Amino acid sequence: MSIAERVAWIGVDWGTSNLRVWAMDASHDLLAERSSDQGMGGLDPDRFEPALLAIIDEFLVEGRATPVICCGMVGAKQGWVEADYVAVPSKPPSGDGATRISARDPRIDVRILPGMKQVAQPDVMRGEETQVAGFLRGQPKFDGVLLMPGTHSKWAHISAEEIVSFQTFMTGEMYALLARQSVLKHSVAVTGWDDAAFEAALSEAISRPESVAAKLFGLRAASLVGDQSDEVGRARLSGLLIGLELAATRPYWLGQNLAIVGAPEVAAVYEKALGLQGLPAQVYDAQPMTRLGLIAAYDGMKGSA
Amino acid sequence: MSIAERVAWIGVDWGTSNLRVWAMDASHDLLAERSSDQGMGGLDPDRFEPALLAIIDEFLVEGRATPVICCGMVGAKQGWVEADYVAVPSKPPSGDGATRISARDPRIDVRILPGMKQVAQPDVMRGEETQVAGFLRGQPKFDGVLLMPGTHSKWAHISAEEIVSFQTFMTGEMYALLARQSVLKHSVAVTGWDDAAFEAALSEAISRPESVAAKLFGLRAASLVGDQSDEVGRARLSGLLIGLELAATRPYWLGQNLAIVGAPEVAAVYEKALGLQGLPAQVYDAQPMTRLGLIAAYDGMKGSA
Repeated sequence: MSIAERVAWIGVDWGTSNLRVWAMDASHDLLAERSSDQGMGGLDPDRFEPALLAIIDEFLVEGRATPVICCGMVGAKQGWVEADYVAVPSKPPSGDGATRISARDPRIDVRILPGMKQVAQPDVMRGEETQVAGFLRGQPKFDGVLLMPGTHSKWAHISAEEIVSFQTFMTGEMYALLARQSVLKHSVAVTGWDDAAFEAALSEAISRPESVAAKLFGLRAASLVGDQSDEVGRARLSGLLIGLELAATRPYWLGQNLAIVGAPEVAAVYEKALGLQGLPAQVYDAQPMTRLGLIAAYDGMKGSA
Repeated sequence: MSIAERVAWIGVDWGTSNLRVWAMDASHDLLAERSSDQGMGGLDPDRFEPALLAIIDEFLVEGRATPVICCGMVGAKQGWVEADYVAVPSKPPSGDGATRISARDPRIDVRILPGMKQVAQPDVMRGEETQVAGFLRGQPKFDGVLLMPGTHSKWAHISAEEIVSFQTFMTGEMYALLARQSVLKHSVAVTGWDDAAFEAALSEAISRPESVAAKLFGLRAASLVGDQSDEVGRARLSGLLIGLELAATRPYWLGQNLAIVGAPEVAAVYEKALGLQGLPAQVYDAQPMTRLGLIAAYDGMKGSA
């Protein structure tokens, strides 16, 4: 049998910058994986279906509507179709509450999973709830805090398989704006690193969070009137911003059971930062967690069909 | 006599985004004022002289080299020619230390004033030292803190006509990046305001500076899951960032004699914020202070000639 004939359904992680798909068989084994840079951030509503078909066409067969389960920013107001939010506290949403899309191509049956929202301290997530679902598939008894670092890092309090509350930080986006588009771009390297500089800046920000506002321009000045290298500038900028995040989330993580789900490079930086606060963390790669979460959602959807 | 025949010298405030010139007579009376958007940020080194001549040509006469005194980012590494820094503590630099430029046009004799630097807590300024000089021309006995808000706000401790120390904050640039280029752009209005929202956010940031990192994304979420207006978003973003700056500078301003030199709109926001902390401030418009500072520098230069 060809791959297309064995594909039972397709999982899709559609974020702001990237589109990633997994072709799955009926036993939830992975048959193939594809990705493109057609993130939702650059697409008008009528461009979503062509962008999806461009990378899954090879997995589709005539005469059958293959289920396609999507999570992420594709369900935002600026996305393909706006999907609901499920309010916390709640289990991560299953396929039950997915929003069905009227695709033009009869070979696909597309659904977008809900995001999650928090009303009391307003917050939203789209995509990370699927990482939580995948993580809980392997660790159903987990009780503690799950950190999902990225452009917008999310801290989620997990108990009894529910997301109890969560909090979002723009640390990754702030880093990108400051490092690439502000006056600091002249003093912050694109690569390179200095562990000691990271640790010092982290510690300064945690102990005196208000000083971060003063120390940002200091990164530029220290390269003009001192001899600070751009690699030190990069490590210090990262340390200051992550330190401010850790200062704000201290009530979340202090004395807690902690796991990190993220892309390996950024997860390692947070693991190091939290380790320096005496807090060990189990680290998981985000992509397999998302795939596991899509499997959980697909199972939930079948149950309701 | 035509204006050009009466022009004794020309003062220039050449910042990152704008170029502003004042044509002065021998008694330092203002004859004419011109400006353009040819800030140093968009100019290659060989484009500075043409950009300057484009707006001062009408003030020049054949057979004489009119002195042109410049302050601001035009003297930065990325500017026309790099000018020195004078280290604090020091009086604002006079024309003595200006860097002379070999202009191609014989009708101009161009000099760029030094900036100021601080080595211990690395910091730099280019342009604000001329505002300080202008302010001190009217208030020579001032002892206290001078706040110069803007893209990069500067807090300078002034005593005995010297700048003793200073500290720079990227508050204005951070505001612009977050309001116009981050995910918050969907929830922050370009105009409109809400005083109560500004005051609440300011107070939150001053009392719990670390919470600012958490509250930034909350501006987006509150418009998605709540009914927060974009005008409230704008006032809250301003309040959070200025509050973080005031929390960091508290040792600078607490119980101090304070004056603000800035563009009227931004100066009024800081005046209000500091007033809420029980700190009254005298407010001065930045442009006349810069012109007075250039007069002081020109006088200093003549003395040394």
